[in-house]
Amino acid sequence: MKKILNDPANVLDEMVSGLVRSYPQYLKLLEDTHVVARNDNNKTNKVGVISGGGSGHEPLHAGFVGRGMLDAAVCGQVFTSPTPNEVLEAIKESDNGQGVLMIVKNYAGDVMNFDIAKDLADLEEIKVEQIIVDDDIAVEDSTYTQGKRGVAGTILVEKIVGAAAQADASLDELVELGNAVIKNTKTIGVALEPATVPEVGKPGFEIAADEIEYGVGIHGEPGYKRQKLVQSKELVEELVTKLDSAFEGIKNKELAVLVNGLGSTPLMEQYIFMNDVLNKLDEIGANVAYTKVGTYVTSIEMAGVSLTLVEIKDDSWIDKLNANAETIGWGDTNVN
Amino acid sequence: MKKILNDPANVLDEMVSGLVRSYPQYLKLLEDTHVVARNDNNKTNKVGVISGGGSGHEPLHAGFVGRGMLDAAVCGQVFTSPTPNEVLEAIKESDNGQGVLMIVKNYAGDVMNFDIAKDLADLEEIKVEQIIVDDDIAVEDSTYTQGKRGVAGTILVEKIVGAAAQADASLDELVELGNAVIKNTKTIGVALEPATVPEVGKPGFEIAADEIEYGVGIHGEPGYKRQKLVQSKELVEELVTKLDSAFEGIKNKELAVLVNGLGSTPLMEQYIFMNDVLNKLDEIGANVAYTKVGTYVTSIEMAGVSLTLVEIKDDSWIDKLNANAETIGWGDTNVN
Repeated sequence: MKKILNDPANVLDEMVSGLVRSYPQYLKLLEDTHVVARNDNNKTNKVGVISGGGSGHEPLHAGFVGRGMLDAAVCGQVFTSPTPNEVLEAIKESDNGQGVLMIVKNYAGDVMNFDIAKDLADLEEIKVEQIIVDDDIAVEDSTYTQGKRGVAGTILVEKIVGAAAQADASLDELVELGNAVIKNTKTIGVALEPATVPEVGKPGFEIAADEIEYGVGIHGEPGYKRQKLVQSKELVEELVTKLDSAFEGIKNKELAVLVNGLGSTPLMEQYIFMNDVLNKLDEIGANVAYTKVGTYVTSIEMAGVSLTLVEIKDDSWIDKLNANAETIGWGDTNVN
Repeated sequence: MKKILNDPANVLDEMVSGLVRSYPQYLKLLEDTHVVARNDNNKTNKVGVISGGGSGHEPLHAGFVGRGMLDAAVCGQVFTSPTPNEVLEAIKESDNGQGVLMIVKNYAGDVMNFDIAKDLADLEEIKVEQIIVDDDIAVEDSTYTQGKRGVAGTILVEKIVGAAAQADASLDELVELGNAVIKNTKTIGVALEPATVPEVGKPGFEIAADEIEYGVGIHGEPGYKRQKLVQSKELVEELVTKLDSAFEGIKNKELAVLVNGLGSTPLMEQYIFMNDVLNKLDEIGANVAYTKVGTYVTSIEMAGVSLTLVEIKDDSWIDKLNANAETIGWGDTNVN
């Protein structure tokens, strides 16, 4: 394992420390936790929005903490769900009397621990609701999941819901909006190289030098097929065709498109892949209303990309994607 | 070579196409060139600021085109200088009658071609000046360089100078400011794994599974020593000590600190490395006034990090680093 680390057991502590020390104007760490919370002076009386999960997917989720997106992110150990107690601390920090929405990726451990935290918050009379992102269409049920996995589409859910919360939507409205976005968000990916969890010290799976695997999960969970490496255009053909089926046709539909690098895949390749995606969507006759490309939801140093489409059911979703967000991770298209 | 590509000969065309099609609200491609220019409606009568160089360092430079940073970026073939004619097109696009500043990394081909473009612009009576970034303290002279190489510190120069241009500094003032920043900007890096240029098809250098090389250039140029992999803290000790010497002591000095991922190194490792850098700078007694960490100046999929320190000679430099920039690459700390 060739990584820039100290003791692998201290990865989480040192990582969140380095993050909040780098961006103290935006972020703080709640004492004795791995909860990264807003540290700006723009807090309002809005509904709190939090997310979290295992680490190793940076910049997800802590990189999306800030005005207009998340109020706090709960960082678990690498590829490990955060504890209910730390989720509760994030809830308490983020509640302004209007309740808290939790955006949870669909992994059994995450769903369970956020659910326990909700019960703990109930005891403290904080109103909490949960929405579960399950955008990965590659496989039904998986190593850590019943149903579909939650992957890169999560950041689009966080952005749309975060913008709505910033505009003073109620907790019930956010649940309804979030579930509508999730229902219309679908992702599929391909991996070229695996990732290595520091405490494990060896890659999560093996793959031949000329092979790629379609539908690998962001913890290295098995995909749906393995084939020889093909050109970007052929990859796009495969992935867009899968998405087209999952949506029961995207022709004439209005779409947001996210190309997401899984870790070590350079922007060079992501831009080339996006170019082919846009060509293919033009050919099909889909209407692209929003595009984003970059390394947002990773699997440590996994090589590969994922493609997310959101069918835009309400034009206000596009406004919310384009709304300002004061985070270190969202980066583009959010500036004034 | 395991990459998401079509014909390696078309990498540049397809990459810039994918980029500008993803962000049309910010970026456009000048016809029949690989010049990425601003496409926003916020143009003013300011001095134009451009940069450019070989591709393969994304998001540098096109990712830093936008209000408050660059007006255009000239994208060469991978690791190859852009042509003088394309630089000239960027100059013509960016001139608003106040002249154009070119920010050039110190590589022989870049310096020559930007210089020829300046001469061509003189014929068209456009006033052009050039500043040359040579922040890499690892080696004196290198494969493609006389003097020191220009590396990650370039984005800090682009940010400070870009903010000054946005605030209506004159061309002469920008040259003076830019040169002052360059003189006080020093970078040193370490590589764990090499990069592969698509048209070459094999890695730029070989390195053992347990070895790292200090001072590798962003085109894989040789560094100053090769050793066994060490922990992050020891890496930091080595690199900060080198920088401390190069600055003739950083104790009590005010610093901006940039930790830059060279391509495939995850944010996880970058944050851990930054945590150790900040500990070491505290121990030395330097005053950290600004911090930034992320993947900004890359060598395709090279693994490794670089550390840049800027000695802040004027507090207005910090204001300019924190000023708003409407780019897709700068990302953090720039939002309103």
